[in-house]
This record gives sequence, structure tokens and C-alpha cells, in this order.
Amino acid sequence: MSITPITRRAEPSLQPMMNLVADEMNSVNAIILDRMQSKVAMIPELAGHLIAGGGKRLRPMLTLAGASLLDYPGTRHHKLAAAVEFIHTATLLHDDVVDGSEMRRGKRAANLIWGNPATVLVGDFLFSRAFELMVEDGSLKVLKVLSHASAVIAEGEVDQLTAQRRIETSEEEYLRIIGAKTAALFAAACQVSPIVAEAGEEAEEALESYGRNLGIAFQLIDDAIDYASDEETMGKGLGDDFRDGKMTLPVILAHARGNEEDRAFWKAAMQGERVSDEDLAHAIRLMRDTAALDDTMESARSYARRAIDALSIFPDTKAHRAMIEAAEFAVARAY
Amino acid sequence: MSITPITRRAEPSLQPMMNLVADEMNSVNAIILDRMQSKVAMIPELAGHLIAGGGKRLRPMLTLAGASLLDYPGTRHHKLAAAVEFIHTATLLHDDVVDGSEMRRGKRAANLIWGNPATVLVGDFLFSRAFELMVEDGSLKVLKVLSHASAVIAEGEVDQLTAQRRIETSEEEYLRIIGAKTAALFAAACQVSPIVAEAGEEAEEALESYGRNLGIAFQLIDDAIDYASDEETMGKGLGDDFRDGKMTLPVILAHARGNEEDRAFWKAAMQGERVSDEDLAHAIRLMRDTAALDDTMESARSYARRAIDALSIFPDTKAHRAMIEAAEFAVARAY
Repeated sequence: MSITPITRRAEPSLQPMMNLVADEMNSVNAIILDRMQSKVAMIPELAGHLIAGGGKRLRPMLTLAGASLLDYPGTRHHKLAAAVEFIHTATLLHDDVVDGSEMRRGKRAANLIWGNPATVLVGDFLFSRAFELMVEDGSLKVLKVLSHASAVIAEGEVDQLTAQRRIETSEEEYLRIIGAKTAALFAAACQVSPIVAEAGEEAEEALESYGRNLGIAFQLIDDAIDYASDEETMGKGLGDDFRDGKMTLPVILAHARGNEEDRAFWKAAMQGERVSDEDLAHAIRLMRDTAALDDTMESARSYARRAIDALSIFPDTKAHRAMIEAAEFAVARAY
Repeated sequence: MSITPITRRAEPSLQPMMNLVADEMNSVNAIILDRMQSKVAMIPELAGHLIAGGGKRLRPMLTLAGASLLDYPGTRHHKLAAAVEFIHTATLLHDDVVDGSEMRRGKRAANLIWGNPATVLVGDFLFSRAFELMVEDGSLKVLKVLSHASAVIAEGEVDQLTAQRRIETSEEEYLRIIGAKTAALFAAACQVSPIVAEAGEEAEEALESYGRNLGIAFQLIDDAIDYASDEETMGKGLGDDFRDGKMTLPVILAHARGNEEDRAFWKAAMQGERVSDEDLAHAIRLMRDTAALDDTMESARSYARRAIDALSIFPDTKAHRAMIEAAEFAVARAY
């Protein structure tokens, strides 16, 4: 007789959500592919490099999952999910120009292949196409939510630019920035389906809250992951935020909790005067000593919990469970 | 008794159109100023540098003039005129990044003061704000016209990027490019008022045609002016297109009409191998010898004529006369 060990709960994953929306995502992908075309050949080439290059399609996935949660029987949200992904892709292209990125989704960043000018302009094109898709759908409420989200994202990005290398950036400022540059589009993506499903104010607010808190959780974990390494695995694209002088929560916490010498290190580091691998290793040690990474993850957990709580008004369905697991996944990535 | 000489008709000017819309333009300016605000201080600073820096406000002026032509009694077009100007401002900011401009409207270009990243992002912000203004107005038809125009502008700009330094660019390709990058927004700006005034399909088409042809006339003359100088006045910001290798109609005509040696010169020049003042002077001589500048202006005149003809369905009013004179002005600038 062999003893079957009790398997502990598998790592939370996005798989259930991906399975839930797989068929509909094919339809969204078809719209994306169709609407990124242009008689100007460079546009589909450049856009396709990023769009076909993968990415989780997390934001349109949330739009689709929300529709499933609400048992929405229509297909209007497909075009709108594509619009959400276009807005996201446009911001990634512009981000790459802003940050001078070298890699994106494991490939050379578009700006390095086609140059900054084309990358800016194709971003503009995709952004305009997103609005054309929304106009075709014809919901002024969706247009309002997504045009406002787009303005907020741009504001958040400029805000982040202002905070860059500024060691005085507070936790509150940081949360405002990521609330704008990341969480606003997550929230808007989640609001689309209750609007087209006419599910009512309560459902809309719940899904908006789910998206917003999930977005913050994802961003906090991304920011932690940038430092969640040790000397051995160094140099694998980690530490980008460190070298760019990006004020993220782990830095803010480690700086606030450090002694005078540590603070001088952080200040110099954020000003770009400590960019070696040894400096990064030292930064990570300081973060561990001050529990800055643990507390960033703890903070992410609490946002993920809020996201899950926001869903409590909905019945227990496959969609509900998949969306809960997505929030668990957001945090589990860091371990 | 003194003889009063018969004064010949004064130079055509934009003044009648500016007078026509002066009061309403104050209201548009107030909306522009109000809606470019943000709690992120760098946004109104950077946007204000360009917006307050003048510019003729030609596109919103066309929206206002069209409303006057149609005797539209409302004010909905004020917000929409502001949206048109925001779209235009966003494209100027992105153009400055794309071209690496040093001057804009007689001031240092925003990208040189605040850097490319902030300039790209504030452009995105203004673009989003334009859509928020349109959504507030609530006309899906206006949203359709302006979101489509925005996509076409971006396409035209990428198209121009592709044509840059490509001596083989044809007149047809060039007209397609300026039809997209310049004329599309002129046309859309003119379409807004007949839509909100519910003036009917015929008025809409007429004003669209007026705007489109006027836009092409303006661009052709701008392209000619870049070469409309002689050795003495050289070096006053002229020749930018020449040094950037921009394929414009004067170059296309001079190249097509040149002998083998001239063509070699143009090819090298567009590839950036002839950028001195002497080279520019030589280019201008070749353009004069081949009547390339004259014929570019002749072409502009024919587009301006078409713009004027498109207005023939409207009665002879102050607005009508002002819009005709604006088209005459577009061409007269080159003399």
C-alpha cells in the first residue's frame, strides 16, 4: 500500500482565468490583429512586434472575466477589451521611449529597432484606434471611463517623472502615482463589462474596486521583484528601477528606516551615483535588513485582499473563483 | 483738391475671421486654460509654454467660423473647438520629439526645456483631455470624426517618417501624407459645427471639403516657404525641411525636372550629405530654374480655389467672406 501524500494547494495562478476566457480572447485577439492594420506598413510591423510578442493580455482578460462573472450574454465587450489593450500597448510604447528601455517582453524594445519617432507615433495611432473602437460600440459611459483613465495614466506618468531621483518622495505620493499610472487602467478595464451588461451601480463599483486594488497589488509586487534577487542571480534584467532612480515602495521604506549612512547611500543611488552590481547587492541587503521588501509584499497582500473582498457581492461561480485566484496570483509571484 | 488714389485690394488676411470669432475665441481660450490644468504641476507648465506661446488657433477658429456661417446659436462647439486645439497641440509636442525640433512658435521647443519624456507624456495627457471634452459634449458623430482624424494623423506622420530621405517619394505619396498629417484635422475641425448645428449632410460635406482643401493649401505653402528665400536672408530658420531630408513638393518637382547631376545633388541632399548654406542656396536655385516653387504655389492656389468653391452653397455673409479670405490668405503668405 502506497501512501498518497496530501498535496497542498497548488500555487495560485492565472490559468483558471485564462481558461475561463480562452474562447472570447480569441475573438479579442482577432479584433486586435484586424484593427492594428494600416496601409502604412511600419505601423502593423512595429505594433505587431509588441502585440504579437506576448504579454499576458491581463487587462482585456479582466474585461472578459467581468462579463463572465455577470453572465453577460453579448459580445460588445470584445471590441472594448481590444480598445483597453490598445491603450495599454500605446502606453508601453511611450514608456519605452520615456525610459529608454532596451528590453520589453523578452525582446528588443521597439524604440531600439524602429527608433523613438516611429515608436511615439505608432503609440498615438493605437491610442486613436482605441477610441475609434469605443466610438463604434457607442457607449458614452465607456468612453467617459476610458478617456478619463487615459488622462489619469498620463498624469501619473508625468508625476512619476517628477518623483524620479527625488529621495524625498513619500509613500503617499508613490501610492498616488501607481494608482494613476497602473491601477486606473485595471479599474477601467473591469468597469467596462458591468457598463455594457447594465449590471447596475453596485456591480460597477465592486468591479472598479477589484480592478483598482488588483492593479496596485500587481505594481507593488513588480516593484518588489525588481529587488527580489541575490548576488548569484544578479544581472538578469533586475535592478532596472534601481539604476533608473525610480522611487518605489521598497526604496522609500528602506530609506525611511535606514541610519544616516544608509540614507546617504539611497540618496546617492537614486541620483544615479551607485549603479554597479555591488551597489545593487548592497541595496538589496539594506532592504532585507529593514524588512522593506517583506513590508512591500505585505502591503500588496492587503490590496489583493481588498480586491477579493470587493467581489463578495457576487455569487460563487467559476468566474468568481478565477478572479479571486488572479488576485492571489498577483501577490504569489514574488515568492 | 487732392486726388485720392484708388487703393488696390489689401493683402488677404486672417483678420476678418479673427474679428468674426473674437468673442467666442475668448470662451474657447478659457476652456483651454481650464482644461490643461492638473495637480501635476509640470503638465500646465509644459502645455502652457506651447499653448500660451501663441499660434494662430487656426483650427478652433475654423470650427467657430463654421458655426457662424451656419448661424448656429448654441455654444457646444466651444468645448469641441478646445478639443481640436488640444489634439493639434498634442501632435505638435510629439512632432517636436519626432523631429528633434529646437524652436517652435519663436520659443525654445518644449522637448529642449523639459526633455522628450515629459513632452511625450504631456502630449498624451492633452490628447486624452481632448477626448474627455468630446465625451462631455456627448456627440458620437463628433467623436467618430475626431477619433478617426487622430488615427489618420498618426498614420500620416508615420508615412512621412517612412518617406523621409527617400528621394523616390512621388507627388502622389506626398499628397497622401499631407492629406493625412495636416488636412485631416482641418477637415475635422470644419465638420464639427455642421454636426452640432444639425445642418445636414450637404453642409457637412461642404465644410469638410473646405477644411481639407484649405489644409492642403496651407501645407503646400509652408513647404514652399521653407525654400522661399535667397542667399541674403539665409539662416533664419529656413531650410529646416532641407536639412531634415523631408520630401516635400518643391523637392519632388525640382528632382523630377532636373538633369542627371541635379538629381544626384537632390539624392545626396535628402540623405543628409548636403546641409551647408551653400547647398541650400544651390537647392533654391535649382527650384527656381525648374519652376518648382512656382508650381508648388500654383498647386496650393488650386486647392485654395477648391476650398472656396466648396463654400458656394452658403449665402454671402460676413462669415462666408471671412472664410474665403482665409483661403486666399493661405496662399498669399508665400509672396
